[in-house]
Amino acid sequence: MRQTAPMPRTLPQVSEPDPGMIQDILAGDFRAVARLITLVENYSLKAVPCLRELFPHTGRCFTVGITGAPGSGKSTLVDRLASHYRREEKKVGIIAVDPTSPFSGGAILGDRIRMQSRSLDPGTFIRSMATRGNLGGLARTTTDVLMVMDAAGFDVVLIETVGVGQDEVDIARTANATLVLLVPGMGDDIQAMKAGIMEIGDVFVINKADHPGVDRVENELNVLLAMSSRPDSWRPAVVRTVASDGQGIEECTNAVEKYRTFLQTSPVQRNRSVQIQRERLLEVIRSQILQDLLMKAGAVERLEELAQEIADRRIDPFAAADELLGQFL
Amino acid sequence: MRQTAPMPRTLPQVSEPDPGMIQDILAGDFRAVARLITLVENYSLKAVPCLRELFPHTGRCFTVGITGAPGSGKSTLVDRLASHYRREEKKVGIIAVDPTSPFSGGAILGDRIRMQSRSLDPGTFIRSMATRGNLGGLARTTTDVLMVMDAAGFDVVLIETVGVGQDEVDIARTANATLVLLVPGMGDDIQAMKAGIMEIGDVFVINKADHPGVDRVENELNVLLAMSSRPDSWRPAVVRTVASDGQGIEECTNAVEKYRTFLQTSPVQRNRSVQIQRERLLEVIRSQILQDLLMKAGAVERLEELAQEIADRRIDPFAAADELLGQFL
Repeated sequence: MRQTAPMPRTLPQVSEPDPGMIQDILAGDFRAVARLITLVENYSLKAVPCLRELFPHTGRCFTVGITGAPGSGKSTLVDRLASHYRREEKKVGIIAVDPTSPFSGGAILGDRIRMQSRSLDPGTFIRSMATRGNLGGLARTTTDVLMVMDAAGFDVVLIETVGVGQDEVDIARTANATLVLLVPGMGDDIQAMKAGIMEIGDVFVINKADHPGVDRVENELNVLLAMSSRPDSWRPAVVRTVASDGQGIEECTNAVEKYRTFLQTSPVQRNRSVQIQRERLLEVIRSQILQDLLMKAGAVERLEELAQEIADRRIDPFAAADELLGQFL
Repeated sequence: MRQTAPMPRTLPQVSEPDPGMIQDILAGDFRAVARLITLVENYSLKAVPCLRELFPHTGRCFTVGITGAPGSGKSTLVDRLASHYRREEKKVGIIAVDPTSPFSGGAILGDRIRMQSRSLDPGTFIRSMATRGNLGGLARTTTDVLMVMDAAGFDVVLIETVGVGQDEVDIARTANATLVLLVPGMGDDIQAMKAGIMEIGDVFVINKADHPGVDRVENELNVLLAMSSRPDSWRPAVVRTVASDGQGIEECTNAVEKYRTFLQTSPVQRNRSVQIQRERLLEVIRSQILQDLLMKAGAVERLEELAQEIADRRIDPFAAADELLGQFL
């Protein structure tokens, strides 16, 4: 079972928003931002009143999700993009999301070290996120974290997903623009890529473009793109980069900028935004109801008893759920 | 956002269990099993009464989860294990779970082809699962599918997870015994493996043991195992295999058998079973409540309106959730 947050056993007090913290965040104070993000990650009830206060101050930040196969150079690209936006005097945030793939250890350690060199720049805020509790998914947490950073006046937030699962794709899609990284030598694999990944890329980046096989992967990508059609009529850009020495970064940021301009003249951005909010609302409701139920006196104990009765086959799981719902809701 | 199941717009009728289908499943009919699994995967309300009927007939099947890094040879090992159990005249099921990693295409195609050769054996039932809807997770679906196969008289079910994320680990852990595959050449990566993966392995299989570096990976694994202690005092077995030519399969199944015997004399199996049922119960409740809410007249429409209002920043997400909960629950 996934690591679960400890179950609440006492009724928490919904606190008032901390006016000092709100003010500090709106002024762009990194420490206040970090503090609220920690509350969000811990599903602290203290976070909710703050998020509500900050919400009207959001909507200006542009977010870019970066996803791709392991080893495609996501971290290096993110690092280069951050430098680029910093040179434009933009306030840059980086969220590195790791939905805890237990098999990717080595690369993550390397990424963290690289990220630390960037964190010496006082104009860049970096945050790693990995926690995933049983009261909500990482995509929802990411949406809330973006809300905090948006209110704190970040111009650009880069969301780098470390793993390769559906979670990562979901997270990348909470961004305004999604970059999908490919590398030469993926060979036939690109053909076998699920349709989903082709649909989410607004800009495709062929990184390590100095490696052999770059023409082949670009051709295959173009064939696939020609076959697929997007409801918004955007034709995804394809750019080549060698992120490790900065080649192609300009073309990449230009492509992102072009897509950003396109978004402003298209209903797509709003549709996507509505979709993100719909999913988030369902997620809030789901976790809220469960939290409410578990707060009821005796509910946690009864849950435990019923789990034991099911394990012993004295009650079936559906009858147990009916009982819990009937008794505590 | 993740692919979501279409939202229900009409009130479904909870049907009576189909007595013919129940009888066929209890008699072990593969086609009836497959039909009910499809209903389970689609979150059909028709599945629930059947599962309730079958539940008292479960509890005899032994399930083995197999997880490991990509390229570690999970499919080949599963194939060999299935052959082994078939030779012992056991009724064998294989569930290949793919929580939709969009980047792993090629390998999966190969796996499917390999699996098809096995599916020619009438004593082996094979099922691929990939769907993940918004009304429940894949771990829950897997638990329900196992319930069906258990009632149908399968002696052993092998659960192979195709990807490498937390989902896969969760799924592997719904099994009675969990095999973790490693391969030589993982080098320092094994050190960086998250603690979680070390804790879930009941048997560690070093596959491709004819490759160089096998001693190193085994030594590192043993060091890690010596440092970690399990609450149940089980000392995980470490076996070497070359699954591609059948070497070490006997040692592997012996280690599984030893663990199975250990489970019978330890409170661990029941504790794990209670934990699985607790998580599953929470999951049933979460999805049940959401489903109930979305069934209410006007709820889906109001959800849509509120998502638009949030996107336009006319209402904050928490106020919107409060409204939906207040109005429809």
